[in-house]
Amino acid sequence: MSVTDTELVPSLGTTEDEIYLQIQRFYAAQSQLLDFGRFEEWAATFTEDCSFTANGFPQPVRTRTALLAGTLQNHKVDEPGLRIRHWFGMTTVEPRADGTVYALSYVLVIRNHRNEPPFIYRSTRCEDVLVRNGNSWLVRDRIIRRDELTDE
Amino acid sequence: MSVTDTELVPSLGTTEDEIYLQIQRFYAAQSQLLDFGRFEEWAATFTEDCSFTANGFPQPVRTRTALLAGTLQNHKVDEPGLRIRHWFGMTTVEPRADGTVYALSYVLVIRNHRNEPPFIYRSTRCEDVLVRNGNSWLVRDRIIRRDELTDE
Amino acid sequence: MSVTDTELVPSLGTTEDEIYLQIQRFYAAQSQLLDFGRFEEWAATFTEDCSFTANGFPQPVRTRTALLAGTLQNHKVDEPGLRIRHWFGMTTVEPRADGTVYALSYVLVIRNHRNEPPFIYRSTRCEDVLVRNGNSWLVRDRIIRRDELTDE
Repeated sequence: MSVTDTELVPSLGTTEDEIYLQIQRFYAAQSQLLDFGRFEEWAATFTEDCSFTANGFPQPVRTRTALLAGTLQNHKVDEPGLRIRHWFGMTTVEPRADGTVYALSYVLVIRNHRNEPPFIYRSTRCEDVLVRNGNSWLVRDRIIRRDELTDE
Repeated sequence: MSVTDTELVPSLGTTEDEIYLQIQRFYAAQSQLLDFGRFEEWAATFTEDCSFTANGFPQPVRTRTALLAGTLQNHKVDEPGLRIRHWFGMTTVEPRADGTVYALSYVLVIRNHRNEPPFIYRSTRCEDVLVRNGNSWLVRDRIIRRDELTDE
Repeated sequence: MSVTDTELVPSLGTTEDEIYLQIQRFYAAQSQLLDFGRFEEWAATFTEDCSFTANGFPQPVRTRTALLAGTLQNHKVDEPGLRIRHWFGMTTVEPRADGTVYALSYVLVIRNHRNEPPFIYRSTRCEDVLVRNGNSWLVRDRIIRRDELTDE
């Protein structure tokens, strides 16, 4: 936010609408980092002590270091002609008294192999607890539920 | 909006950009209520005297009571392993002189059966007339056009 | 923006969050113009001296006049029962010192033939340089990369 914070002007970036917009932008940037193979920068959008839980994983991943290692491992086997695009949408946010924000989003994972038509690889639900990081945010805890594996 | 409304600060929530963001958030919350089976709360996002018209329905549904009854009936037959996700996007808004807002959105309906890949079940266009409800909105009139049934 | 610009109130529409929201709205309106066959109005969302480059085109298209001519030509052959929907998402923006904005978005093109299910026709990446046009924006330079044709 480039607006000067004075006594007369409300501190921008702290109303719920402003938080909503920041988190929308955060997810867009985070998806691009992952999809463009910038895995270290992607991992840096999580806190050092983060947890990442998924109903497709045998157990939660804990710490940014472990998250990065697992992600690098997973993408080692990607074929070069495969493009992956993560689409966040239908996000709702709940700011909490401790300054964190709970956010629930739908996430579609679109895959596109070379010279083939794109398709929806996964439809998932993402629940995050986010913490402030200056004017942006970091994910502290993420839970991903793939729709084809859940009753909810 | 948590900003205190004073004479020095513009009344937030009333500029077109603010209305846009509110309506975007409204659609996200509304979709989650429907998709997570919270049908009474979903119906409560429409006015009591609402109309809901669709090119897939034989005739418009009128009143929130009838909308809820029809929706409960439709979802009775859903298989337990079916997840449905409504994605609103490409929304445009036109605030009108009477305080209502006309909004036109695209809506994708994604379906995911258990242990199967997700797919786009419907691509539709949604036209709403929304009325203010405190800091949020209610749908007074909705028209849904399924893309495979329309020439527009 | 309908807020009066005074010395006490920051000039709305110029912070990065406000620019982000404007550009989001711009893409929604632009997609509707294209998808609803309003090709002249769609072309008017580009500057007169625009360039439009795509990895599916033999060479860049230059000027709004040429862009409109090519677009009218392309859509002449559309079957009447075909609906096309452009979904922009995961947009990031970078305001630049010269007042332009660089924006990178994902774009899905959904197609729906009459009485058939919708499908994703293309998954692409869109890079724009946008210039201010009053309270809205115009595209000066656009590069589209279809995901199935790119290694990035």
